[in-house]
Amino acid sequence: MCNCSILLVGKNMKYFLDNASTTSCLDAVNKEMLRASMEDFYNPGALYSQGFEIRKKLDDARDILLKSINGNGYKVVFTASATESNNLALNQVKKNAKVIIGGGEHPSIYETALSLKNRGANVVFAPLNKDGYVDIEKFKEIMQPDVDFVSIMHVSNETGNINPISALCQYAKSVNPNVIFHVDGVQAFLKINVSITSLGVDMYTISSHKVHGPKGVGALIYKSNLHLKPELYGGGQEQGVRSGTENYPLIAGFVKAIQETLPSLNDNLIKVQKTNEALIQELRNLHVNFEINGAGEKSPYILSLSFLGVRGEVLLHMLEEYGILVSTGSACSTKKIGNRILQEMGKNTKQIEGNLRVSFDAMADVDVAYVAKAINECVNK
Amino acid sequence: MCNCSILLVGKNMKYFLDNASTTSCLDAVNKEMLRASMEDFYNPGALYSQGFEIRKKLDDARDILLKSINGNGYKVVFTASATESNNLALNQVKKNAKVIIGGGEHPSIYETALSLKNRGANVVFAPLNKDGYVDIEKFKEIMQPDVDFVSIMHVSNETGNINPISALCQYAKSVNPNVIFHVDGVQAFLKINVSITSLGVDMYTISSHKVHGPKGVGALIYKSNLHLKPELYGGGQEQGVRSGTENYPLIAGFVKAIQETLPSLNDNLIKVQKTNEALIQELRNLHVNFEINGAGEKSPYILSLSFLGVRGEVLLHMLEEYGILVSTGSACSTKKIGNRILQEMGKNTKQIEGNLRVSFDAMADVDVAYVAKAINECVNK
Repeated sequence: MCNCSILLVGKNMKYFLDNASTTSCLDAVNKEMLRASMEDFYNPGALYSQGFEIRKKLDDARDILLKSINGNGYKVVFTASATESNNLALNQVKKNAKVIIGGGEHPSIYETALSLKNRGANVVFAPLNKDGYVDIEKFKEIMQPDVDFVSIMHVSNETGNINPISALCQYAKSVNPNVIFHVDGVQAFLKINVSITSLGVDMYTISSHKVHGPKGVGALIYKSNLHLKPELYGGGQEQGVRSGTENYPLIAGFVKAIQETLPSLNDNLIKVQKTNEALIQELRNLHVNFEINGAGEKSPYILSLSFLGVRGEVLLHMLEEYGILVSTGSACSTKKIGNRILQEMGKNTKQIEGNLRVSFDAMADVDVAYVAKAINECVNK
Repeated sequence: MCNCSILLVGKNMKYFLDNASTTSCLDAVNKEMLRASMEDFYNPGALYSQGFEIRKKLDDARDILLKSINGNGYKVVFTASATESNNLALNQVKKNAKVIIGGGEHPSIYETALSLKNRGANVVFAPLNKDGYVDIEKFKEIMQPDVDFVSIMHVSNETGNINPISALCQYAKSVNPNVIFHVDGVQAFLKINVSITSLGVDMYTISSHKVHGPKGVGALIYKSNLHLKPELYGGGQEQGVRSGTENYPLIAGFVKAIQETLPSLNDNLIKVQKTNEALIQELRNLHVNFEINGAGEKSPYILSLSFLGVRGEVLLHMLEEYGILVSTGSACSTKKIGNRILQEMGKNTKQIEGNLRVSFDAMADVDVAYVAKAINECVNK
């Protein structure tokens, strides 16, 4: 299951270590998308048998998706992005709802929550502790019976911290059984083991392009008993929630990415954990002055480092010369937002300015000695 | 510029005559998407040069798109579908706005308008005349100075009628210079010559998958002086209007479809006109009992027929056996909506029940004698 696209990309790119931002499609995914684009281009709404067959394939895709996260009793709305899924989830709240969102959320939750606030919702932020988690004790203080909706990310796209979703959700439901608990699972899905049934959440957002699937497709998974308000009006596709001709070729690519990745999820996790730890060790061996942001239970796919006295953005551009691509904070955004999360964790200006995010790809081998050496040389310059 | 995907599809499909519903991607489009998926997968928001290059390519894509419809002085928001573009356009109106929409609009306008109505907007429908156009005299009656927003489709997806957009827009602006005039141009773009500057409209919706581009991408083109309200909140992509990682591979495919089609637009139009007329002539030669829905200036790409005393849906399934795929009314929808448009035109139950939509593809050759013979045999059965 090698990813030959790495070989195809031009420039002097040796190591793409910005996989939390986006990933390249697996060869099998590209192949499947091409096949579906050529053979399965029919409109799923068509009355002839070819239309019916695509409808059937769409249903199969939903089943595969749900099975991959143990989602018996849930439904799937395919969207064009996790951003859209997150907007769709949050826009379910009524005008004057009381909403809690995590202090470390992605802009697609954070900015949407601010828009809800502008429209009259009472939005409260659940603070992060210094290790990068939603602080469970502080969450308990704000989680009152009048809270209608909670949205807390599973894995932080900044630090890799894995929030204790199950405990948070269980507590929230004990206080208000009717609370809707949504989770942005973009950096968790296919990276760590996810069972939405065990988590007990009501809605879960996933993205395709973070897991070697195509861009332009995501999903919102939601409990079957929930009735979602429409997001896009029109032909009534996606259970009437999101009209528009279903994009089967991209969905087929997404499903292929799931099928290719899921069986090796645990092996991948072990491999990436080793790479992550090896890079830290190499940097330590070279006596590089750095700190790791976030502690405790973390996804090894994301490593947030702060190089004190160095500007992350300068370091990023210097590393480009070594063929190493990383990011400073989240690159999901055209605005700089990394600061918000690290600030929330109580980091100082130097720690924030020197921030670099290294995010791994289980499909690619990384010469960590080379990467550590390059970082050391850049920091010393 | 042959479209070999036609050769690849299985079954006994000989003639795909449902191109108003969706089209297959051109070979060059599939090739370009595959290339972009492999080489240009980087996040356009990334700070390294590869990210910058995709941002540049996105800007180039916008320029090519605008040039193709003479859109100097306009901007482009890429969306995931024309449905999304239409929702985005209509959702610009303020809560108590007065809105006129055409009587023959696609569900993505019609249903969105109904949702606006539910939220307090005053929505008025501009009636169609019996020929299938927005009746210009009746439009003048309802187009009062307090109308904030007008949305009228360019080419009817049901009948192919080309609405007199320029005249309607000019009149609307003469009554209220501040009115926003939106046009759903899905069935016009790359089929008939479109100059949005000449039309004088404020917003124009287009789709990729109706013009041999990929599904999952559309655009809303809007006058540069307009300030659009955000639709999706998050990283601030697409001028802050529609957050979410830009889907460059699909946009690249869309642009390729434009580049491949635009130079032969007029030749295509002549070819399809001939095919359309030849089919009508063949049916007449065979003395088939049918009527053509819609009259006057029409796009030859869409031919709406009514076979009296026959049910369109039965005819559709019978034609499948001949390898001919058509639709009954619009197939853009999971609900039957063809009735609404033909009813609006004053058609009776028999005319509506016997409706069949034949929609052509300039890239494919059709044996009209075979198709007419098949229809005749089905009608006689």
